[in-house]
Amino acid sequence: MAKRPAPKNAFYAQSGGVTAVINASACGLIQTARKHKSRIGKVLAGRNGIIGALTEDLIDTSKESASAISALRHTPSGAFGSCRFKLKSLEQNRAEYERLIEVFEAHNIGYFFYNGGGDSADTCLKVSQLSEKMGYPIQAIHVPKTVDNDLPITDNCPGFGSVAKYIAVSTREASFDVASMAKTSTKVFIVEVMGRHAGWIAAAGGLAASEDTPIPIVILFPEVQFDERKFLAKVETMVKKHGYCSVVVSEGVHWPDGRFLAETGLTDAFGHAQLGGAASVIAGMVQRELGLKNHWAVADYLQRAARHIASKTDVNMAYAMGKAAVQFALQGHNSVMPTVDRISDAPFKWKVGMAPLSKVANVEKMMPKNFITKDGFGITQKCRNYMEPLIKGEDYPPYKNGLPRYVRLKNVAVAKKLAKFELK
Amino acid sequence: MAKRPAPKNAFYAQSGGVTAVINASACGLIQTARKHKSRIGKVLAGRNGIIGALTEDLIDTSKESASAISALRHTPSGAFGSCRFKLKSLEQNRAEYERLIEVFEAHNIGYFFYNGGGDSADTCLKVSQLSEKMGYPIQAIHVPKTVDNDLPITDNCPGFGSVAKYIAVSTREASFDVASMAKTSTKVFIVEVMGRHAGWIAAAGGLAASEDTPIPIVILFPEVQFDERKFLAKVETMVKKHGYCSVVVSEGVHWPDGRFLAETGLTDAFGHAQLGGAASVIAGMVQRELGLKNHWAVADYLQRAARHIASKTDVNMAYAMGKAAVQFALQGHNSVMPTVDRISDAPFKWKVGMAPLSKVANVEKMMPKNFITKDGFGITQKCRNYMEPLIKGEDYPPYKNGLPRYVRLKNVAVAKKLAKFELK
Repeated sequence: MAKRPAPKNAFYAQSGGVTAVINASACGLIQTARKHKSRIGKVLAGRNGIIGALTEDLIDTSKESASAISALRHTPSGAFGSCRFKLKSLEQNRAEYERLIEVFEAHNIGYFFYNGGGDSADTCLKVSQLSEKMGYPIQAIHVPKTVDNDLPITDNCPGFGSVAKYIAVSTREASFDVASMAKTSTKVFIVEVMGRHAGWIAAAGGLAASEDTPIPIVILFPEVQFDERKFLAKVETMVKKHGYCSVVVSEGVHWPDGRFLAETGLTDAFGHAQLGGAASVIAGMVQRELGLKNHWAVADYLQRAARHIASKTDVNMAYAMGKAAVQFALQGHNSVMPTVDRISDAPFKWKVGMAPLSKVANVEKMMPKNFITKDGFGITQKCRNYMEPLIKGEDYPPYKNGLPRYVRLKNVAVAKKLAKFELK
Repeated sequence: MAKRPAPKNAFYAQSGGVTAVINASACGLIQTARKHKSRIGKVLAGRNGIIGALTEDLIDTSKESASAISALRHTPSGAFGSCRFKLKSLEQNRAEYERLIEVFEAHNIGYFFYNGGGDSADTCLKVSQLSEKMGYPIQAIHVPKTVDNDLPITDNCPGFGSVAKYIAVSTREASFDVASMAKTSTKVFIVEVMGRHAGWIAAAGGLAASEDTPIPIVILFPEVQFDERKFLAKVETMVKKHGYCSVVVSEGVHWPDGRFLAETGLTDAFGHAQLGGAASVIAGMVQRELGLKNHWAVADYLQRAARHIASKTDVNMAYAMGKAAVQFALQGHNSVMPTVDRISDAPFKWKVGMAPLSKVANVEKMMPKNFITKDGFGITQKCRNYMEPLIKGEDYPPYKNGLPRYVRLKNVAVAKKLAKFELK
């Protein structure tokens, strides 16, 4: 029998804003690849995302121990570094795509796994198309990830469930706090959450209230034009009735003219633009117009990095997406993305599905209109039915001395074989 | 044998800003009192703190089931309501103290348990002194609580360990996040934490970095006058060396002239003062002067309400303080406070001690100077030795549908017996 050729290596990169569970996808992907060494050689990761491929800065994941790879499952952030770097269109910068293929060829890479959101799905599709044209065909599989939950076809995006859980838990806790203080002190608590275009994360704040734990919560969605008078009336009614209320405000909330609430338009004594935040604008309004003492928080990175309170469902899905990506590759698929296909809400059942990248790239999934209550300040039962399963279950990381033990990989570089490439 | 008189009831109230574990103290106190029904009748709680005593708005905790009281151990906030209401001095408003005694007498209350910080220790002492003078002696025991960690004699204040753990965990997580993004995007992450007068909580951010997980962290303490030039140089050095850094800024950080960083001095178009935040001021500075992209968070109530990531050590101490308060009362003590007495750092050992309220009231414990590094931006090994044991251990609450099951008590009112009293 003729000697079989060396199996192709795989390239894996993380793209865009990281999440609490993107490394769980990396874990699923690498562990599954390691089980098929006759078919997949090494998994080479891009240092700082796709930039690592362009600059031939590859990480040899085979140098990592099984326990280090296993620990990725409970480690937030992007273990190989991520990047905000969008490849230009083929017409604008064909050289970038050609460079990718050149690097892949030099390192015997036959599989391209790209873990990200909408932009990376588009890149993934283009890489697959161009590689074929250039006579070096690559199987390109996109692994879904984004806290924004805006990818189409898949039921949800791994990363979202854990942010949703963090926001729901934190809003419940802070609401208990303000309720205790309301008699003589703070009556309104405001928390600002991520979501510039869509209110998925803001909606999760509504989960803090449940049938057995009612909480007066006012949600400000980017989907709903901000109406100051109506908002203040709502808060006033809530505080009169319950003694307190909590406000969950999306960073994307804007005035009817499209300006974000966070744009204060102010400059300081030196003419420097003031960086506001939607929460502090709301806080000023509530204090000034209603005379209600309030406190405000901005969750920012804390929400998407909070692996300590990740959703078990989300972690499982993230892992499953990484695993499925390798399985799809082994089955010969190309230009596809594994998806979460929901079978039923209660009991919650789902399975891994597959979507062609042509239907994923450049399509943004918005929150359905019927997820927001008529008055524009709350979530409907339909929204709850969708979201509740996604925050279910806890998946605590191991601790040492009171702190989570998150892994840092060795990230050993692969020797370069090509000339330097200048990023534009 | 003569019939023994009905045992005296106990009064319990929660005071000031609530914490993730003040209810654990309530749990320890009520459970212990229930074991001594021949000596302590009912525990009557003040609705909304001491205001409940002044207005004769008492809660009959005997109406709560054993499981509800047990659930207080894992429920953040103040289950009976807290208040920010400082009793005036005896000279200024003797009527308030006399009213307290009147209410206590009407409800056969012989024990006064006050769960709070420095102000409530002072109130506790005065109640004890005046009650004796008025011929209705009461045993007054203070139960220590405050996230600010500023009570003297006790090794620490229950509530602090859990805030410290939250800040340490969150800073570690967000630092992993920014490290992943730093190549092409965010290079500095800033989080604002509580502590207007002392940097205990800010110092906890330093725990995020450890020997096996080094992280470049710059801490801004209220104890150190803010020096913009020096701060920016520090951040620049850190980012040059590590590619990123995290900044933990206390809300109490101030300029050499005493103004808080958060006071922007700005007004909007309507002349309304702008509510800033120290974090956004730092963010603007880092962007403007160093050109470094950054993200900022304000933890606010999230930090002190975060029961989901409470320190087990802290929960145990909070419970022990409540339990000890009742034991001290049964032993005949008066005008005292249970304390945490540290026996050794490693292994961490502590026992319950006792302090006279005369030595606690109106004494504020500041952070030792040798807890801050010479450059003013970090914590020393001494600080670590003190703080590390306080964040140790996890004590997860039970969950239902992805959310912590926090208890809400029935809080049944005791029938009033006296005329109305107007609060001044």
